Amino acid sequence: MAKALKVIVALGGNALQESKGPATAEAQLEVVKKTCEYLADINAEGYEIAIVHGNGPQVGRIILASEAAKDVTPPMPFDVCSAMSQGYIGYHIQQGLQEALRKRGRGDLPVVTIVTQVAVDPQDPAFLNPTKPIGPFYTEAEAKALAEEKGYTVKEDAGRGWRRVVASPIPKQIVELDTVKRLWDSSIVITCGGGGIPVIRKADGNYEGTAAVIDKDHAASLLARDLDADILLILTAVDKVSLNYGKADQKDLDHMTAQEALRYIEEGHFAPGSMLPKVKAAVDFAVSAPGRKAIISSLYKAVDALAGKTGTVIEN
Amino acid sequence: MAKALKVIVALGGNALQESKGPATAEAQLEVVKKTCEYLADINAEGYEIAIVHGNGPQVGRIILASEAAKDVTPPMPFDVCSAMSQGYIGYHIQQGLQEALRKRGRGDLPVVTIVTQVAVDPQDPAFLNPTKPIGPFYTEAEAKALAEEKGYTVKEDAGRGWRRVVASPIPKQIVELDTVKRLWDSSIVITCGGGGIPVIRKADGNYEGTAAVIDKDHAASLLARDLDADILLILTAVDKVSLNYGKADQKDLDHMTAQEALRYIEEGHFAPGSMLPKVKAAVDFAVSAPGRKAIISSLYKAVDALAGKTGTVIEN
Repeated sequence: MAKALKVIVALGGNALQESKGPATAEAQLEVVKKTCEYLADINAEGYEIAIVHGNGPQVGRIILASEAAKDVTPPMPFDVCSAMSQGYIGYHIQQGLQEALRKRGRGDLPVVTIVTQVAVDPQDPAFLNPTKPIGPFYTEAEAKALAEEKGYTVKEDAGRGWRRVVASPIPKQIVELDTVKRLWDSSIVITCGGGGIPVIRKADGNYEGTAAVIDKDHAASLLARDLDADILLILTAVDKVSLNYGKADQKDLDHMTAQEALRYIEEGHFAPGSMLPKVKAAVDFAVSAPGRKAIISSLYKAVDALAGKTGTVIEN
Repeated sequence: MAKALKVIVALGGNALQESKGPATAEAQLEVVKKTCEYLADINAEGYEIAIVHGNGPQVGRIILASEAAKDVTPPMPFDVCSAMSQGYIGYHIQQGLQEALRKRGRGDLPVVTIVTQVAVDPQDPAFLNPTKPIGPFYTEAEAKALAEEKGYTVKEDAGRGWRRVVASPIPKQIVELDTVKRLWDSSIVITCGGGGIPVIRKADGNYEGTAAVIDKDHAASLLARDLDADILLILTAVDKVSLNYGKADQKDLDHMTAQEALRYIEEGHFAPGSMLPKVKAAVDFAVSAPGRKAIISSLYKAVDALAGKTGTVIEN
């Protein structure tokens, strides 16, 4: 029997929560259970998988609740909200995936969430230009008072009000990597949730939390490199990456070399905050060693994409 | 060299948060860091440890924030709040303990939090008489409306208002046990936080969340049995268990047989919700197989207690 291919699956927000409908935990669990059917299918095809999930809507609501309740109990800092979202989402995926695996006679395979810190470089240029809005909307006066009081960076957000913005630096180190390595050939490991709890490594070698949003596709790419995975599978809302997306001359891509991908990035084909980080994360993995392949496709076509029937492959 | 003794450490609430002072995450982290110095000392003495922590104040605040923010974002069910508290507290212990280990030249030892579900029996008699108050205070009318609408059990709480109460059933199964077994001889594993995310096993073998508070000392006792640990070390605010606690004839105990402990329980020496569950959890472990020993002592005397210099030993 051929050695099982090792696949890091990066799950987008749409795999955890519907964009419409109630944002309750019960509604999320229903969506997660459907998603887990697709993940279990990948595993049942013989691939060994580890899962990195997004957390945007969930951590957003944790922050909202924390800020809205500030007269009752102190608001939690961003790193703690991120850790809470890993517990929350990881638990749901564990429950849903164990159920989906059991249906397929694979109920013995452990599914485990590792609370994961991911270190970023405090000198990352992203810290000079924070772009990720988090938490509630404020008036200009409230926002500027918070900036004064807590050192937040605040920005006006598309006419909707003022918000805190944090940096989105590149992930440099997965602190709990050894544990993930130890487990992942015998378990389905959920790790680097939400891109990881953002920490910086201090001069004394210890870590401390920081306010930053780490892109989960970049974290998945780093994990795939560190684990020497065969495939980085980035799942999103579309089956393939496109040039001229949404225009009359849209062209869906079956394949890109890393070099082509970089040229398309230069040409501005991919939207920042959407397809752009996925393509960049895919390229980073594809060029990191011979034989490494990234695939961007949709959750619903994941098995077909791994079989080469759809999706966009990025190779060096 | 003798084989290292394996110790399950059950950490009480006072090890994570001061009862006075601000209930911020930053204040918690400072307390956790001090606690981790003691835990690292235990490890540096050559004991292999796994950690079970309480979560009462933390999950309480998560629920409070979630309910206070209910007009902004839907409140989270109890199992999800429990999962969030595992992420939060686990992250802090990881950070604090890695730092304390590094000081002792043990920085290579992984510290890892496993998001852990613990199954309880839906027929547990505790469900017939819920006793654990959780979440905010309500007026009688509000409480009764919630009971009507959501099926909550509500009770008047010592003249302070009405609260939701949930059951505290006995833990039956640690769902992620295989993973903990796999890791714990090479890592310090944080598991069953807050007694575990409460779930019940359905007829089809799948798990679903339930509203229940699992006693963390009972969860630690179950873990110690399942892992075939040598010692269950229950850390609390006092150095020894006492008879006639707080009275003129208080007698501190160095040792109890399981039989003596059961007699003292009968005689009403131990306060429910305080020393009683600790002594019961200790007895459960001590009688489960030959050679198993439980120790109840304080965090600050933990190393001395393991060396037999203080603490109360419970053996069969």
